[in-house]
Amino acid sequence: METMNWPDMVLTPIGRVVSSLELPSLKVGKKSDELEPSRGDVRGEYDKIKELESAIELFDDQAERLHGIEAFSHIVVVYWPHLIKPEDRKLTQVHPMGNREIPKQGIFATCSPVRPNPVLISVIRLLSRDGNTLNVKGFEAVNNSPVIDIKPCSPHYIHAENMVIPDWMPGR
Amino acid sequence: METMNWPDMVLTPIGRVVSSLELPSLKVGKKSDELEPSRGDVRGEYDKIKELESAIELFDDQAERLHGIEAFSHIVVVYWPHLIKPEDRKLTQVHPMGNREIPKQGIFATCSPVRPNPVLISVIRLLSRDGNTLNVKGFEAVNNSPVIDIKPCSPHYIHAENMVIPDWMPGR
Repeated sequence: METMNWPDMVLTPIGRVVSSLELPSLKVGKKSDELEPSRGDVRGEYDKIKELESAIELFDDQAERLHGIEAFSHIVVVYWPHLIKPEDRKLTQVHPMGNREIPKQGIFATCSPVRPNPVLISVIRLLSRDGNTLNVKGFEAVNNSPVIDIKPCSPHYIHAENMVIPDWMPGR
Repeated sequence: METMNWPDMVLTPIGRVVSSLELPSLKVGKKSDELEPSRGDVRGEYDKIKELESAIELFDDQAERLHGIEAFSHIVVVYWPHLIKPEDRKLTQVHPMGNREIPKQGIFATCSPVRPNPVLISVIRLLSRDGNTLNVKGFEAVNNSPVIDIKPCSPHYIHAENMVIPDWMPGR
């Protein structure tokens, strides 16, 4: 591979998550070769999180960058799953959602938090803004997760026509 | 702000973009205080990019992680805009799409590539997979951009009910 002259890609947190969720839905098992649900049924967990209200507290120096965000009903939040251990990022294939009845898939074909670069993305409802705090609904990030970026959600951004997904993956 | 005990967040490229696009649609102007279109009309540019075919070449050590990706019609690609200068990331508000007729918005309320953490996200069509290469359509990343992550696109991931956006932002 030719030399690419790429810059260092180092992320700086812009804020943190304030949530009643303390544990991720999935964790890496003791044998370090598989994902396991932290708390029973992962699908049931997802349904609860859809209704969960939490907050994103941005640091003071980020306030100016939020101007206008209130005009959007939904935002795209980029965050880092800080409870994932660096060594777990070596996993290459997993049973999706920790369900051993589904054949193993490559990490890039799953939403697993265990990835070479664990940059997670959520599309969530923005309920209100209170200064540097965004009150949100449906956010699965655990308490104190570092937030990396906030983007507005628009049909231009997240539009996918005639989307096809494999049978193993849940729809809405 | 209390000490968070957060890990260092350093990204490692998993591959690169191979595209006929050599310049980003928007660049920071000479006065370093504003975004400007690189090539005329930004909206016209977006329409062309929708039809553009390009590729994502993953490095050899990432091949196992792609298993199963072919079952998805769309993927979410996370990449770094390597042509953005680090000093440009200090911008806090811009006229969206470099259009001075739109009032300035905070960077987090825009899709500007100039952000504190320039982690860009595209939802694009996956045309085919050829070993480590993903052939895609509608990807606005420029040639040689470092790729950070590939995620499957599903309605669970990118669903936003009753989405509201401000008047200044284009729809589809």
